[in-house]
Amino acid sequence: MYSFTNDYSEGAHPRILQAIMEANLVQNTGYSLDTHTSHAISLIRQEIRCETADVHIIPGGTQTNLIAISAALKPYQAVISASTGHINVHETGAIEATGHKVLAMDTPDGKLTPQLVRQALECHTDEHMVQPKMVYISNSTEVGTQYSKAELEALSHLCRLEGLWLFMDGARMGAALTSPVNDLTLADIARLTDLFYIGGTKNGALFGEALVILHEDLKPDFRFLIKQRGAMLAKGWLLGIQFEELFRDNLFYEMAGHANAMAETIRTALTDLGYAFASDSRTNQLFPIFSDDMIRELREHITFEMNRRIDETHCCIRLVTSWATTQEGVEELLRFVRAWPRPVPGTSTAP
Amino acid sequence: MYSFTNDYSEGAHPRILQAIMEANLVQNTGYSLDTHTSHAISLIRQEIRCETADVHIIPGGTQTNLIAISAALKPYQAVISASTGHINVHETGAIEATGHKVLAMDTPDGKLTPQLVRQALECHTDEHMVQPKMVYISNSTEVGTQYSKAELEALSHLCRLEGLWLFMDGARMGAALTSPVNDLTLADIARLTDLFYIGGTKNGALFGEALVILHEDLKPDFRFLIKQRGAMLAKGWLLGIQFEELFRDNLFYEMAGHANAMAETIRTALTDLGYAFASDSRTNQLFPIFSDDMIRELREHITFEMNRRIDETHCCIRLVTSWATTQEGVEELLRFVRAWPRPVPGTSTAP
Amino acid sequence: MYSFTNDYSEGAHPRILQAIMEANLVQNTGYSLDTHTSHAISLIRQEIRCETADVHIIPGGTQTNLIAISAALKPYQAVISASTGHINVHETGAIEATGHKVLAMDTPDGKLTPQLVRQALECHTDEHMVQPKMVYISNSTEVGTQYSKAELEALSHLCRLEGLWLFMDGARMGAALTSPVNDLTLADIARLTDLFYIGGTKNGALFGEALVILHEDLKPDFRFLIKQRGAMLAKGWLLGIQFEELFRDNLFYEMAGHANAMAETIRTALTDLGYAFASDSRTNQLFPIFSDDMIRELREHITFEMNRRIDETHCCIRLVTSWATTQEGVEELLRFVRAWPRPVPGTSTAP
Amino acid sequence: MYSFTNDYSEGAHPRILQAIMEANLVQNTGYSLDTHTSHAISLIRQEIRCETADVHIIPGGTQTNLIAISAALKPYQAVISASTGHINVHETGAIEATGHKVLAMDTPDGKLTPQLVRQALECHTDEHMVQPKMVYISNSTEVGTQYSKAELEALSHLCRLEGLWLFMDGARMGAALTSPVNDLTLADIARLTDLFYIGGTKNGALFGEALVILHEDLKPDFRFLIKQRGAMLAKGWLLGIQFEELFRDNLFYEMAGHANAMAETIRTALTDLGYAFASDSRTNQLFPIFSDDMIRELREHITFEMNRRIDETHCCIRLVTSWATTQEGVEELLRFVRAWPRPVPGTSTAP
Repeated sequence: MYSFTNDYSEGAHPRILQAIMEANLVQNTGYSLDTHTSHAISLIRQEIRCETADVHIIPGGTQTNLIAISAALKPYQAVISASTGHINVHETGAIEATGHKVLAMDTPDGKLTPQLVRQALECHTDEHMVQPKMVYISNSTEVGTQYSKAELEALSHLCRLEGLWLFMDGARMGAALTSPVNDLTLADIARLTDLFYIGGTKNGALFGEALVILHEDLKPDFRFLIKQRGAMLAKGWLLGIQFEELFRDNLFYEMAGHANAMAETIRTALTDLGYAFASDSRTNQLFPIFSDDMIRELREHITFEMNRRIDETHCCIRLVTSWATTQEGVEELLRFVRAWPRPVPGTSTAP
Repeated sequence: MYSFTNDYSEGAHPRILQAIMEANLVQNTGYSLDTHTSHAISLIRQEIRCETADVHIIPGGTQTNLIAISAALKPYQAVISASTGHINVHETGAIEATGHKVLAMDTPDGKLTPQLVRQALECHTDEHMVQPKMVYISNSTEVGTQYSKAELEALSHLCRLEGLWLFMDGARMGAALTSPVNDLTLADIARLTDLFYIGGTKNGALFGEALVILHEDLKPDFRFLIKQRGAMLAKGWLLGIQFEELFRDNLFYEMAGHANAMAETIRTALTDLGYAFASDSRTNQLFPIFSDDMIRELREHITFEMNRRIDETHCCIRLVTSWATTQEGVEELLRFVRAWPRPVPGTSTAP
Repeated sequence: MYSFTNDYSEGAHPRILQAIMEANLVQNTGYSLDTHTSHAISLIRQEIRCETADVHIIPGGTQTNLIAISAALKPYQAVISASTGHINVHETGAIEATGHKVLAMDTPDGKLTPQLVRQALECHTDEHMVQPKMVYISNSTEVGTQYSKAELEALSHLCRLEGLWLFMDGARMGAALTSPVNDLTLADIARLTDLFYIGGTKNGALFGEALVILHEDLKPDFRFLIKQRGAMLAKGWLLGIQFEELFRDNLFYEMAGHANAMAETIRTALTDLGYAFASDSRTNQLFPIFSDDMIRELREHITFEMNRRIDETHCCIRLVTSWATTQEGVEELLRFVRAWPRPVPGTSTAP
Repeated sequence: MYSFTNDYSEGAHPRILQAIMEANLVQNTGYSLDTHTSHAISLIRQEIRCETADVHIIPGGTQTNLIAISAALKPYQAVISASTGHINVHETGAIEATGHKVLAMDTPDGKLTPQLVRQALECHTDEHMVQPKMVYISNSTEVGTQYSKAELEALSHLCRLEGLWLFMDGARMGAALTSPVNDLTLADIARLTDLFYIGGTKNGALFGEALVILHEDLKPDFRFLIKQRGAMLAKGWLLGIQFEELFRDNLFYEMAGHANAMAETIRTALTDLGYAFASDSRTNQLFPIFSDDMIRELREHITFEMNRRIDETHCCIRLVTSWATTQEGVEELLRFVRAWPRPVPGTSTAP
């Protein structure tokens, strides 16, 4: 059965595997001190238009989040996140396990705003409460939305004014940057944040997230933190090779663009058929609202994740496309949907 | 200026100081292994009708919370709390500093219910999320409310069914148990919870909270945890002596009863004058809603803490009485209030 | 220049890469819940003769150590290690970062003995000290030595008697098990320890360590811990595929055997020439003692790591062979050594 | 039976209790923001000749150590300590529980030297190892010895050269400063260290340690850390009052001087009788070596702690005097010792 469960169901782009095979018997220096990694870092620095950035390629996203956040915060400091933020719900308390509170703010669309950040600041006034010191945002977000340049500039402005670190989780950075409604570049993000990462795992690498550190204060001794958290891969060149390929000839954008295009096909078809979505996503995660009957039947044709109940007879599901999603897979899904009775207008509206 | 800022503005009941003075030059065994502590423990066991309980007297409340919670939870487990819970807002992330997430649930009255606990359980379904394993409640709560026997029984029933530890923060246990609407005893609490503590600091001791451990699985090696967190007082008998006095001749209840009676006098007077309260408290913390003008003026007469803004022209303040609150202090407050123009009905309503 | 720096300078055995390529476009379930991983686990269970073992394949060694140790210990418990143990010196305090003390014992040969463990127990007598609760051993050790069956049985016996967890770090398990002086099997180790891991990274996998949990008390909820520490790989089947290959047709033993054979060639040649070693290793790490002059010159021919100074004119270096070490590489090293003046007997003796 | 078990067997100097009683019903600001604390702080600043020092009075010693150390270190940094250091052996892993490794160095006399510190630095060279960043010393030490001005200056010099924090645990600071061989003042210590504390608990206060922070970088937000670790006493003025008394009219020095004088009496008597000591202490802790027979009998007369076995028939015990030790207590001890057969010369020598 074709899977729309997530964007990490397949391995890596063949070019990436090919590069790994070619380097296989060459003796490399361990722990990311190899030439592939240096080259990947210089490609990334070029792409973000910042020659002074520190870049560390780390195997996984939860690792990257917990290392970046615990590196930047003092023991009594906290990180502000949307309540839907990955660090708040889907990392088994990894941030708290490093000793820090996540201050979760409810949002309508998975995005933090200056107003929400200010609200978090205002209710933390003295030493009996944690001190908010970092703003964590995901781009694209966990509900498929994304930040515009204006939104990111506003957040960045507030963070600098208030002395807050601005950290962008880019596990799905590719999807955000190749969305039809995007107006941000990696160079903008490097200019507006203090640190962020570029996700490989969910965009056609075997694994690997490139953490980019912009602010000088966050750079020293960072490799100690990576090692201590168990995230320094012995054969670190495997990470370097993958990011060399991702940032050579735009492979990174091509793969994300493909995932988005596949999602856009599905989104357009569902919209045309009258279906509503629980989230206004133009990236590779879609949250259509279907009736329980329809969902039950759909399970016989494709695999996907439940998201949440909308009303007594409807739920929202999550459909995820990837760099590897095939036209055939999409067709299979759409064939089913087109054959199913159209929704009665007004019955399946997003909240 | 008379202070209604909190219930720890004065020292200790004179009987307690007297007992400390009398023991001053006697050589005692250190680290709470002395005879005063043993005696205090046996008085507490008698009071809670449970001879097998382990009792540890710990200097402060935040310490007691962080030790009890981190002792009971495995690294990936979380504690459910009302969002107003002391551990969630007023302990500078002490629980997170031990590695555990606080799952904060919004409540209308500072109290958790079986429904809220179930809600927390339902959205934590697999290993990508923390595992809720403890329910933390305060009695009386941070907004002055308290649990009835029926409410505690319902929570206890659910916790046992779902394998959750039930922990009661009793920093203001005295106020809860001597409230006019209380129907719980310490023996009930010992029967219905897995661990709880009896607060001394906010009820006439210099300092000290007696942590009572009921569940066998939580008892072993507990002194290691107390020591590791820096909470094992060298001159531990100072804690023992204080709880000996508190539980000899009902001093514990007398002091809390006095605090409540003083609050009740204020509450009745304010109600009669037409003031509303942000919280339905029958304990020693009151949350009246006053106009901004009135609050500004009141500051010239007594000291107190702001709580929060209610509407554009009104705020809610917090008035706290204690074992030491004097009739004169209360009179000073009421004199001011009675002299102030009565509130226009409907203008200062609690949300 | 040929490198004897470590056993993770090359990628993976070609069979492993081939298997990864073949599975590349098949859609897999994420987070190690795929069929490759299940199959790898059943191969491992078969190999260790224990159908009830839990097996988790984790990307790296430091991760595996910190997860296993923090999973097994309560907050006040400590792990006993040789002072040369990897967790004590080469993991940037990863164990302490999870809150636990490493009790380091000096040893002549990198191996713990019942006597050393007893010594650690004897000086930890009450709640003012940590409670030793785990024994950590490496096999082969960080100095290339290994445990005999009798030694492991003695340790295991003591641990069971004293209620200590016995954990074997098997980052170089392959080297230990294929050493000419080995008399242990994986089945023995599964019988004698509570948990251990089988290293892939240092024996021909791209990455991956298979953690085997034998004791029932350590099994529950283990995936929560893996996720929380950031060690749950999204594309977990990459780990599964690698261990499928390692334990199909004895590839695991073949590769380790090759590494050992290459080391044995070097060891014999150096011994014949009169060189001494700082450690009595029969595995893939050798610690020959050379004069400073010789070391300076050798650096022009091969790469390796310095270990430590032996006397004013001699140091000990570390030479590591791997599954990929070539006959040519060994020849290059031996050519140099044979051409160098033989050591004057008695000048370069191990301490 | 008279106790020489420790220096915290009695309560507080009567002047301290008197001051607490007098303030008992005055309403104070909570959490150490009261006037007694301010006054105590200004007395301490005067005594240490440093008006810009930050001073925080914290209930206990383990708390003070864990807060100070975790405040100063980044997650991957470690603290160097003598292996006999309190933080290494007698705090149940409190430092490790905050995430930091204690690098324990063996010493002949409980004191760190520049050479030992350098040795610790030299074996920590890269990101695979913790980064030593603090030097922890106790004065007087756990074995009763103390630092001379020259020794402290040498350590301070090295620490500043190498960018290490120098932290002095002064749980027994009084004993050190009033020892007959002392040449340090609190002003010297304030000049030579980055932070240190002045112990109250072991020198006649009920409890309380005054942490003095000299280095600007360690000052910001310190109260957050105190609160988070549960060490911010609600009735903080109890700490303030005690240090007001300690540093008014030299009470602090008088009490410590008395303890030392009592120890000196015992030391001289034992030396005259031919007894050896395991440690060359001129402070209030003595470590005489007695035969097992003698120790068994002595237990019938006074209480004390065993220290360690010296040879097959001798052990070293610990005798501790305090501000409250009586002439009668000392006489009782000496009466017994004088009546016991003198040691045969050469049989009970310290190692």
